[in-house]
Amino acid sequence: MRKVFQADLQQIGEELIEMANQVAVAMDRAWESLANADVELAQEVIAADAKIDFLQNQLDERAIDTLALQGPVASDLRMIVGSLRMSASLERMGDLARHLAQLTRLRFPSRALPSEITGTFSQMAQLDIQIAQAVAKLLDTRDLQIARDIIELNHRLDALHASVFTQVADEAWTANAPTTVDVSLTSRYLERFGDHGVSVARKVTYLVTGEWDPSEV
Amino acid sequence: MRKVFQADLQQIGEELIEMANQVAVAMDRAWESLANADVELAQEVIAADAKIDFLQNQLDERAIDTLALQGPVASDLRMIVGSLRMSASLERMGDLARHLAQLTRLRFPSRALPSEITGTFSQMAQLDIQIAQAVAKLLDTRDLQIARDIIELNHRLDALHASVFTQVADEAWTANAPTTVDVSLTSRYLERFGDHGVSVARKVTYLVTGEWDPSEV
Repeated sequence: MRKVFQADLQQIGEELIEMANQVAVAMDRAWESLANADVELAQEVIAADAKIDFLQNQLDERAIDTLALQGPVASDLRMIVGSLRMSASLERMGDLARHLAQLTRLRFPSRALPSEITGTFSQMAQLDIQIAQAVAKLLDTRDLQIARDIIELNHRLDALHASVFTQVADEAWTANAPTTVDVSLTSRYLERFGDHGVSVARKVTYLVTGEWDPSEV
Repeated sequence: MRKVFQADLQQIGEELIEMANQVAVAMDRAWESLANADVELAQEVIAADAKIDFLQNQLDERAIDTLALQGPVASDLRMIVGSLRMSASLERMGDLARHLAQLTRLRFPSRALPSEITGTFSQMAQLDIQIAQAVAKLLDTRDLQIARDIIELNHRLDALHASVFTQVADEAWTANAPTTVDVSLTSRYLERFGDHGVSVARKVTYLVTGEWDPSEV
């Protein structure tokens, strides 16, 4: 019984890593599609998101079965419940990448974003990809330095998000209103992606240390 | 033991209803603060959100303890795991109301929103309040007609959200770029609030019927 249980936990852990890797790829390709108005790539991102959703369902079913069949206690129990939370965050990251791809499709054949903002968003997308990759590595290694790195990457993301609004408020901003809407939503999606990565990082930290720092949430 | 378990389930159910009620009040007051540039009311909403977060933590701890101590199976197990999901959705609805209050504070003493859009947002906010109140009632009664009503309310919310972008794209739209950003984010917050209400409605439906309709997710 114990052996089966360890195999279940292992499998859940691997599925989380797989989700994080797929989410990193999704953001990479979603950003690429948006920057280049590549509608075919956008379609692929949208299709791939269904796979991420499927992975989440599979993981959640396994976690619930494990709870039912193995009746885990203490740290194992928290690990499994934590996995349900982490899979929800990762699934949401996939949705946010999909939103970017949907924007590509909506504005095609035009580029959705004005060129003056593309540099900032490109940096934000790169930070998002780094965060998702770091989440995969953190889940694999449980090295808490990576969790701290993720929080630091997210601070940089937040600063860039704030700078977008400074740019939009500047007199030099000449984009029309629908483009301004696209810019604000894109910035919001890119920023939220990082927040979900931080949620996973905090959850892993909590599972490893048993300590939850609410001031850091 | 069985009695204790039923009491735990009852308590978790009541805490979910309490969260839904608090979230309905939060949206009501957040919208009021935004429409009237009432910064004191905004502060109260922001402070009250900490209580909603606290309720979520308390509920989650209880759910995890119940899993550990009672080792529930089958429908009871799914009910408790479902509660963890529902508490996360309700907590997020509280966050979205808080975002509106934060916008009030950020733009004070000005009103954040231009008058021509206020009517649409007021309707969206009323739908959000209705959705949150319906969620509380659904959790209490398990009457699945209410779940269907929530989905219908959310369709109306989505249509209003879409109409905001039509308004912003119109030549008659004269608001400056920062205001256009505020308008797009406000619309997004109001729309997401309803989505989370729908998530709870679907979860309750699933728990009652045992059937999950992925086409409806």
